[in-house]
Amino acid sequence: MSPLENKPLIDLEALFKISYGLYVVCSKNGEKLNGYISNAVFQVTAEPPRLAVCCSKNNYTAELITESGKLSISVLNKDVKAGIIGAFGYKSGRDIDKFANVEYITGETGIPVVLEDSIASFECSVSQIVDVDTHLLFIAEIINRRIIDNAGEPLTYAYYRNVKKGKAPKNAPTYINPDKQ
Amino acid sequence: MSPLENKPLIDLEALFKISYGLYVVCSKNGEKLNGYISNAVFQVTAEPPRLAVCCSKNNYTAELITESGKLSISVLNKDVKAGIIGAFGYKSGRDIDKFANVEYITGETGIPVVLEDSIASFECSVSQIVDVDTHLLFIAEIINRRIIDNAGEPLTYAYYRNVKKGKAPKNAPTYINPDKQ
Repeated sequence: MSPLENKPLIDLEALFKISYGLYVVCSKNGEKLNGYISNAVFQVTAEPPRLAVCCSKNNYTAELITESGKLSISVLNKDVKAGIIGAFGYKSGRDIDKFANVEYITGETGIPVVLEDSIASFECSVSQIVDVDTHLLFIAEIINRRIIDNAGEPLTYAYYRNVKKGKAPKNAPTYINPDKQ
Repeated sequence: MSPLENKPLIDLEALFKISYGLYVVCSKNGEKLNGYISNAVFQVTAEPPRLAVCCSKNNYTAELITESGKLSISVLNKDVKAGIIGAFGYKSGRDIDKFANVEYITGETGIPVVLEDSIASFECSVSQIVDVDTHLLFIAEIINRRIIDNAGEPLTYAYYRNVKKGKAPKNAPTYINPDKQ
């Protein structure tokens, strides 16, 4: 038997070993714009290029994506200012206008694309919505992609947590209930 | 208009800005064991904790996961030796025994869990399979999780590509067709 077999089998730290980036995911329906901070973005197919994005059903942006079938993803820069994450990550767009002081454009699909503190962006059209109880998984085909700052490095979730001391908000798939720690 | 609006909209480099880790994903059906290297793993729900894993339909492991409903994920160490990635990443388990020279255990769900060059592992039970044309997305509930080496850092795809000069194999969701570059 390997000595490693004796390692404890329930270890909350294990989930911290999964690597992620951090992104602003936006959408729009009619006049309503919104966006949120997501770590849960990955590529699922190469041809055609499609991304999967996981979003809490409680997020206002999930409603807008479901209604419009469109989403944008901006890859945050490692040198991101606290402002963007504060505005998009911890407040609801039902209460505030998250875009009031943020540099963004209206993309060719008509939805907002955040440029500020971002190094690349994607506009996507949703092809499938998968219900995973508390969250929705949007499978979305890339309509266009853009490099905003090729010299910039992507912000990783590990860097955000370890260096910037950020925590996952309640709607994140990676949220840790403090009562369970 | 922002000067950033003039950035080209089709830029293959943009997809390199998405952050990933690298993992060995394994399964077993009857006497058949197999595993492959994946970058496409993320958490989709917190309660219960579930992971999504994207796997090419061409991968032998996809067959075994579909048949058994079980998978394991080992998070590779940044200091991984070339051997593990070579054995699991670029060859088919239909032709070779990938486990011949690798340290692994049989987990409590009966499937192999690679320990070598890994810092954490998960055993999971598949709750949903999503068909995304060329790939399958396995939504899998975590049965157990284990820290193997808490001091080790996870291998990221960026580090593997930039420092170790590794490339995505043909079945990866992130595969770049050289004819299109």
